[in-house]
Amino acid sequence: MNAPTRIDTTRTIRAPRGTELSCKSWLSEAAFRMLQNNLDPEVAENPAELVVYGGIGRAARNWECFDAILRSLRELNDDETLLIQSGKPVGIFPTHADAPRVLLANSNLVPAWSTWEHFNELDRKGLMMYGQMTAGSWIYIGSQGIVQGTYETFVELGRQHYGGSLRGKWILTAGLGGMGGAQPLAASLAGACSLNIECQQSRIDFRLKTRYVDEQAHDLDDALARIAKYTAAGEAKSIALLGNAADVLPELVRRGVRPDAVTDQTSAHDPVNGYLPSGWTVEQWLQRRVSDAQGTRDAAKRSMKVHVEAMLAFHAQGIPTFDYGNNIRQMAKDEGCSNAFDFPGFVPAFVRPLFCRGIGPFRWVALSGDPEDIYKTDAKVKELIPDDAHLHNWLDMARSRISFQGLPARICWVGLGLRHKLGLAFNEMVRNGELKAPVVIGRDHLDSGSVASPNRETEAMRDGSDAVSDWPLLNALLNTAGGATWVSLHHGGGVGMGYSQHSGVVIVCDGSEAADRRLARVLWNDPGTGVMRHADAGYEIAQDCAREQGLKLPML
Amino acid sequence: MNAPTRIDTTRTIRAPRGTELSCKSWLSEAAFRMLQNNLDPEVAENPAELVVYGGIGRAARNWECFDAILRSLRELNDDETLLIQSGKPVGIFPTHADAPRVLLANSNLVPAWSTWEHFNELDRKGLMMYGQMTAGSWIYIGSQGIVQGTYETFVELGRQHYGGSLRGKWILTAGLGGMGGAQPLAASLAGACSLNIECQQSRIDFRLKTRYVDEQAHDLDDALARIAKYTAAGEAKSIALLGNAADVLPELVRRGVRPDAVTDQTSAHDPVNGYLPSGWTVEQWLQRRVSDAQGTRDAAKRSMKVHVEAMLAFHAQGIPTFDYGNNIRQMAKDEGCSNAFDFPGFVPAFVRPLFCRGIGPFRWVALSGDPEDIYKTDAKVKELIPDDAHLHNWLDMARSRISFQGLPARICWVGLGLRHKLGLAFNEMVRNGELKAPVVIGRDHLDSGSVASPNRETEAMRDGSDAVSDWPLLNALLNTAGGATWVSLHHGGGVGMGYSQHSGVVIVCDGSEAADRRLARVLWNDPGTGVMRHADAGYEIAQDCAREQGLKLPML
Ligand SMILES: NC(=O)c1ccc[n+]([C@@H]2O[C@H](COP(=O)([O-])OP(=O)(O)OC[C@H]3O[C@@H](n4cnc5c(N)ncnc54)[C@H](O)[C@@H]3O)[C@@H](O)[C@H]2O)c1
Ligand SMILES: NC(=O)c1ccc[n+]([C@@H]2O[C@H](COP(=O)([O-])OP(=O)(O)OC[C@H]3O[C@@H](n4cnc5c(N)ncnc54)[C@H](O)[C@@H]3O)[C@@H](O)[C@H]2O)c1
Repeated sequence: MNAPTRIDTTRTIRAPRGTELSCKSWLSEAAFRMLQNNLDPEVAENPAELVVYGGIGRAARNWECFDAILRSLRELNDDETLLIQSGKPVGIFPTHADAPRVLLANSNLVPAWSTWEHFNELDRKGLMMYGQMTAGSWIYIGSQGIVQGTYETFVELGRQHYGGSLRGKWILTAGLGGMGGAQPLAASLAGACSLNIECQQSRIDFRLKTRYVDEQAHDLDDALARIAKYTAAGEAKSIALLGNAADVLPELVRRGVRPDAVTDQTSAHDPVNGYLPSGWTVEQWLQRRVSDAQGTRDAAKRSMKVHVEAMLAFHAQGIPTFDYGNNIRQMAKDEGCSNAFDFPGFVPAFVRPLFCRGIGPFRWVALSGDPEDIYKTDAKVKELIPDDAHLHNWLDMARSRISFQGLPARICWVGLGLRHKLGLAFNEMVRNGELKAPVVIGRDHLDSGSVASPNRETEAMRDGSDAVSDWPLLNALLNTAGGATWVSLHHGGGVGMGYSQHSGVVIVCDGSEAADRRLARVLWNDPGTGVMRHADAGYEIAQDCAREQGLKLPML
Repeated sequence: MNAPTRIDTTRTIRAPRGTELSCKSWLSEAAFRMLQNNLDPEVAENPAELVVYGGIGRAARNWECFDAILRSLRELNDDETLLIQSGKPVGIFPTHADAPRVLLANSNLVPAWSTWEHFNELDRKGLMMYGQMTAGSWIYIGSQGIVQGTYETFVELGRQHYGGSLRGKWILTAGLGGMGGAQPLAASLAGACSLNIECQQSRIDFRLKTRYVDEQAHDLDDALARIAKYTAAGEAKSIALLGNAADVLPELVRRGVRPDAVTDQTSAHDPVNGYLPSGWTVEQWLQRRVSDAQGTRDAAKRSMKVHVEAMLAFHAQGIPTFDYGNNIRQMAKDEGCSNAFDFPGFVPAFVRPLFCRGIGPFRWVALSGDPEDIYKTDAKVKELIPDDAHLHNWLDMARSRISFQGLPARICWVGLGLRHKLGLAFNEMVRNGELKAPVVIGRDHLDSGSVASPNRETEAMRDGSDAVSDWPLLNALLNTAGGATWVSLHHGGGVGMGYSQHSGVVIVCDGSEAADRRLARVLWNDPGTGVMRHADAGYEIAQDCAREQGLKLPML
């Protein structure tokens, strides 16, 4: 057997557009296009290695697996289901029309073996891949996917700490990768300036090109001067700075500089591949993480400790400081920083009240490839949710400020009761020809009912059930039962091996009446499990929401 | 809120029999009956505490949850699905006729928190229960469930080590609980004598009463005398001995006694509740595991080390010695016994070749309660599989030697290609009235495609993928997609918290044509995932089986 191809720089992947099918139906076609869309150079961070985002989050295990998946999807019948095990197509089994066309399980390890060391060993042997959240489940849509979440978080920060306005304020953060690259734009949309530290010039260039960041500073002094100028003028500008966060943050503490908020989105969850150790060049890093993974990890974790200590210093000054879901506190704690968890994660700080109502990063993609299809759905959302000014504002800003990457897509945080209404309306638009082709609807695994991640989404749950992962497993089983088009179960997304279990779901609006029935079920059930999970944990908002919406919770 | 009721000694649970329904269809009725059957005093080890078998393996979290589950099942419509989270009914959601009626997730924890300590804390708070394998997934059928597996294992041991016959040989083991209690009978059926050490007289009494064990010895000398007599006479008799394995095994080593095989089925996987420390009375144990869980655990693990050292001594003498799936080697290793894994687990030693063909503990239960229904299915199995003398022999012995516990049931190790044929035949027998009522078909989680458990079912996989749990997750998702009646995902069964992930499946033959279609899919797919998993790991038997059976494996 030949060694599998992990890198191929010769290929350029882009999803087919239009209405001609490569597969036997729109259900398998949707998976076929979305897998390829995940690897579109406009979308993926490192498509030659099949890496989509979030460190080494892959869409397929290797290029042979990628080709075999496409081949399997082309041949798949509408009463069959394709199984994907960590990015490899392993089986096709008889099911039925209302069953998912694809079921995926990525990066799952028996708990006592759930470490990066064991995972990396299996990865090297070609037995596994890291699926992150939407990379391995084929519903990543570029940085836009995270923009609204980040925007909602910053807006909520403004509400809680600055009387509802971030005008004249500035946010200090790091990491301009697939997810982190959304931060400068989200800050601008929320009305704040931002200073964004990133150690790779290529990443800064990419964010400048896609208009996610406004300008790059020459050095720290220049950056601070720009921040001072724009905050004084009340202009919401984003500044990128090339540098290492583990150096820049302590320097800012030493200088007595006071940002108005502090966070971080380097890929700290993956200490071998995700975080540049202080004092290393990027070139050294790229080599040594292969030749000396352990040494790289140790150096990265030492730097993360320094980084977190600086964040703790800001926190101690009363500056709103929060972990943005990359598990950097845990890494610092492992290194002996015992008070690393003194500052909170962003979910308990800002997002949980939304999760209690099933509100989370709902998204959809136009398989036609035509931006007009998205604009028409934007209008439909406004029509169906007429009195939500905040949402309308988001849609307007998104349209004017966010470049599409790959297939045109939109994200909107909506919850139980609204998601299935939107899904049914989009399906109707496909049926009556308003849209040029079907639409797929999905969400992040970071959502209300789909994840157990005690250092992030389920941090500090009221009843102490942070680590109970029955919930995301039930979510995946129920979405499979309801007839989603593909369903995935992953481990280790966001916060790394050992720290999370989560599930993904995607469902296709192909305009059929069968799809109406599936959409009505799946887009009700999926946020419903989130409300259920939070109601069970004792959150009154969720209990009230369950009662209002008529959710059947036998022991509430 | 009142504290939930964990113990109720006033209630006696027994499944309804006959054809009158308490629920709206046979699908929900089947779950309704099987949950109650799991707690039938004939079936469960400790029904007052809802404990079915395997240490603290429960059928429901507490009595309020138990009642709420029954209530929910009574009201459940055939286009709805009930969700069970660690033994609590948490939601009812719209699905469709071909979807499972119940989906269960029990004892699942995010890996970094997957310890008995954290589990026990959640259990005490009323947030979790331990589902073991078939306890929390409502398809435990008493010790018979394990008899054939144990029988197959002992027969294979005889083939490998004693030229195909165990006549005149004797097996040394311990533990006469829910599972372990099958050992003496299985040994007898396989032609061997057995010495079975058990520390609780009540457990010995129960096995004597159900004819699983033949006689009890007064003391060790008496036991050895009986063994000597029966082995000399070539009579396959089973002897129980009241005592602590951690004392008796070392004593046998000291005396130079040589059994012909050595194993163990105490509940070593749960060091707080499952293993009596040496020198303690059972009464002290019952108290101290509540008042001093840590001290109990530590004492139990110290005794397990002594126990395993004695097993290693037998192993060193060339006596076939194997771990019978209770994780006792890991416990001894934790205590510093570095060579604990010198003797193998029973799966790589004896069972894997069967798993490669999808062969495992297939079972079915007559919901009528009428033993005749089982006898008719026995005859049908012989008719459909006419040329398997070993299987016919098993069915004859099972009928003459195995008492039914609770609803009449049968177990038969069969694999891919046969399971769905049997299922369809049983469904036909329900349809044409040959059977008095529907039958449920299920299996243990210990099966070919349903479990990742590196110290047991997936020990020493050829490609090193022991800890990859994508496989059981895909199994559960696919069985959900195929239309099983209930599907479960558990963690920690058999070997305890942190060491396994596994899934269960049950499907009802209600005589309908819709059930034909579901049975054809589910009972093909379920063993199919086992063949797929072993083919992917490089086992030629599995690859050949996949080709012969026409399994669609895209990259084989
Ligand atoms: N909170 C959320 O909503 C959310 C969602 C998804 C992901 N995340 C987490 O955010 C993190 C970032 O995700 P991503 O997709 O952007 O990852 P990514 O790997 O694409 O980007 C990380 C970026 O950080 C930069 N970086 C690494 N070390 C640095 C250092 N010492 N100083 C400055 N820059 C450094 C890298 O060059 C890279 O551009 C991950 O840990 C991810 O799990 C959070
Ligand atoms: N290999 C398999 O096929 C398989 C299947 C299921 C379960 N198991 C494992 O086998 C073990 C037993 O399962 P079970 O359902 O019988 O559990 P159980 O808890 O019902 O029975 C365990 C028995 O061991 C006895 N015991 C405990 N400590 C002892 C000691 N020191 N000396 C003598 N006897 C002692 C207990 O009194 C009890 O009767 C579990 O660890 C289970 O996970 C194996």
